[in-house]
Amino acid sequence: MVTTNRHTSATGEASHQVLSATAATVHWGYFSRSLKPVLSVKSGDFVTIETLTHHAYDDHARMIEGDPGAESVFHWTKDAKSVDRRGAGPMDASVHGRGAGEGFGVHICTGPVLVRDAEPGDVLEVRILDVKPRGCRNPAFEGRAFGSNAAAWWGFHYNDLLTEPKPREVITIYELDTTGGRNWARAVYNYRWVPQTDPFGVVHRIIDYPGVPVDHALVQENHSILKGLRIPVRPHFGVIALAPKETEIVNSIPPNYVGGNIDNWRIGKGAVMYYPVAVPGGLFSVGDPHASQGDSELCGTAIECSLTGTFQLVLHKRDRLARTPLADLGYPLLETSDEWVVHGFSFANYLAELGDTAQSEIFAKSSIDLAMRDAFRKMRHFLMTTKGLSEDEAISLMSVAVDFGVTQVVDANWGIHAILKKAIFPGDPG
Amino acid sequence: MVTTNRHTSATGEASHQVLSATAATVHWGYFSRSLKPVLSVKSGDFVTIETLTHHAYDDHARMIEGDPGAESVFHWTKDAKSVDRRGAGPMDASVHGRGAGEGFGVHICTGPVLVRDAEPGDVLEVRILDVKPRGCRNPAFEGRAFGSNAAAWWGFHYNDLLTEPKPREVITIYELDTTGGRNWARAVYNYRWVPQTDPFGVVHRIIDYPGVPVDHALVQENHSILKGLRIPVRPHFGVIALAPKETEIVNSIPPNYVGGNIDNWRIGKGAVMYYPVAVPGGLFSVGDPHASQGDSELCGTAIECSLTGTFQLVLHKRDRLARTPLADLGYPLLETSDEWVVHGFSFANYLAELGDTAQSEIFAKSSIDLAMRDAFRKMRHFLMTTKGLSEDEAISLMSVAVDFGVTQVVDANWGIHAILKKAIFPGDPG
Repeated sequence: MVTTNRHTSATGEASHQVLSATAATVHWGYFSRSLKPVLSVKSGDFVTIETLTHHAYDDHARMIEGDPGAESVFHWTKDAKSVDRRGAGPMDASVHGRGAGEGFGVHICTGPVLVRDAEPGDVLEVRILDVKPRGCRNPAFEGRAFGSNAAAWWGFHYNDLLTEPKPREVITIYELDTTGGRNWARAVYNYRWVPQTDPFGVVHRIIDYPGVPVDHALVQENHSILKGLRIPVRPHFGVIALAPKETEIVNSIPPNYVGGNIDNWRIGKGAVMYYPVAVPGGLFSVGDPHASQGDSELCGTAIECSLTGTFQLVLHKRDRLARTPLADLGYPLLETSDEWVVHGFSFANYLAELGDTAQSEIFAKSSIDLAMRDAFRKMRHFLMTTKGLSEDEAISLMSVAVDFGVTQVVDANWGIHAILKKAIFPGDPG
Repeated sequence: MVTTNRHTSATGEASHQVLSATAATVHWGYFSRSLKPVLSVKSGDFVTIETLTHHAYDDHARMIEGDPGAESVFHWTKDAKSVDRRGAGPMDASVHGRGAGEGFGVHICTGPVLVRDAEPGDVLEVRILDVKPRGCRNPAFEGRAFGSNAAAWWGFHYNDLLTEPKPREVITIYELDTTGGRNWARAVYNYRWVPQTDPFGVVHRIIDYPGVPVDHALVQENHSILKGLRIPVRPHFGVIALAPKETEIVNSIPPNYVGGNIDNWRIGKGAVMYYPVAVPGGLFSVGDPHASQGDSELCGTAIECSLTGTFQLVLHKRDRLARTPLADLGYPLLETSDEWVVHGFSFANYLAELGDTAQSEIFAKSSIDLAMRDAFRKMRHFLMTTKGLSEDEAISLMSVAVDFGVTQVVDANWGIHAILKKAIFPGDPG
């Protein structure tokens, strides 16, 4: 962790607050610089934040039933929907016929949390101190937690299937142990998506709107799948975001320079993230909890599983950043116990680079070729700025010792990450 | 390791032969189905093979001087060159003005080794039992080994430099310890390439021909670089190849369905590779030895360092492959103690897919977007064929537990690999 200031000691004892996920504390599918904060913290404070997966309605009995927070957020009858805006689209639900917000953006995000004194140009350090799966509150499944993997229309595989019916969307429900007895997940069953009619009467032929209730009387559950397989558990948050400054309402899907939907499974317990602050107060939100994900998130989702995280938020003021690892930081940076990781995207700041139509354009320009270029430039920047190497040194080191991997190929603004091992710099306290 | 047959016991005791690298036992920059084998083995035999880096002349004193094998291969005076053909280009050295073979292909490969009874459709298993750096034979550098990293014109960074002069090529010499005292490499010095005149009088303004002698009186050595940095050592072979069947002389740079220049640092000691046999006898060659490389090999090369490997070659006959992990294997497959790894390329078999001009076309179509597609399809094939999963199971598993990484972005036919952990299948002896 980077120690450039001592805000905690300068402003009194750190507090520890808890932020539950309810209809009143979440925003669904978008970020906005104009959202009213649901909590305010000072640098050095701790906060425990509940997050809910937007895929919980894929199995209501296992992921919603009996859970007051989840029931509050997912409540939807023919007369009322708890969270009306879902996504960054028009609030007039008739424009595209899917519902309010039109589903341009999918993630349930808890927050935003205002960080006092945070100003554009500062860096917010987010220390992830703990991550726990949210145990099922339905007595029928006590001691267990569940997640959903959707192989969906936005997946990399979708137009490239071998077997019939083509195309198709498939939901796989996975189970985790919450007693600590095992560190792997197992598949419970899967089903193919069939058209679902939401409580307002809109038919969803594909998974086109977040949180549509799935009627299990209509689907065929297959319980003999992935028999005996053990999925390594890697609990992490797909989305940790500050609010971007460029646009009023920003789709939660494409990651950007202030973070968002990075979908790197390394952003779990023990990890530290650094983000440039773009708007006053930063406006920190967390969502898209994942139990497990592979590098690439190939089919469109991870094991989407509600989690609770404990964070410490540390503000680094812009006038104290020179000659620290955070100097000139214009992108989300990950630190683990062993590694520094930079995140490249097809477009580093698509909102600024692609102009007025950025939020639709970005979906047409997904490319890991472009993301590789961005990851190269960011790692070079890190090595030259933070580690003080010449460009010749940085480029040789990258080729012989930095590992580039595919973060995701499903979030419009596709990602490549670059991993630098700290052990390369043995004399460096960093 | 896969046990589908018992060729060793069926045909007598396994032998262990040694194949030294000399001008008579190497081919430089190309593969060919017509090369005369330099050694013949039967299934189950062991062979220790010396390999030489084609970058040794970047520092003659440290990587060639006093080493009879290297001196034999690199010998080049105004009157004679030990290895005349270097690459897959025309033998008339005047066509492009660079020299015989014209440098279309760069790697010094030791071999080929003929595997008796190997026929198209069989699979050759290559067990890498040991890998050792080739100690310097110059008494001035006893107990040490050296390698060269070239940030060259074919690197991903080359047209995207920040600092002057632009563009430029930079050689960095690294040192390894051969006494076992440390498992990391350190940089010794670097220099920028300046035009070099080869012994035949051809001027090389860029690194356009393999093995051009570098006159150190012409370059500026900088010895204060990468001070104190420890590069993790990952000795491996960039090139392990069988001969392709499609074309007579094949450039060694683009990897393909029978292996070749895959450049995955995991192909080191303890690894097992499986290749489809394309021509009678297989024609197995090894080269492009690397001391360390990061995923992506960003600047064009690794720490290019002569190595000696010990291999066991096991032939799996095509009629014994059904219901084994090798069933229907049409691509190079890596097995480590913990993982299965498939290799995707921009074009899985560019020689067949791109037609008569494949060997030039492939350089214009480099893309990790395409390689990601191929890696997805190969991992799906592996999971469905070898592991017996349905397509729905395979796709979900890939998204939640398979890691895709960037193998290389510098070998024309760019690479993405996909890593599957064996521990996911706890009941599987595979």
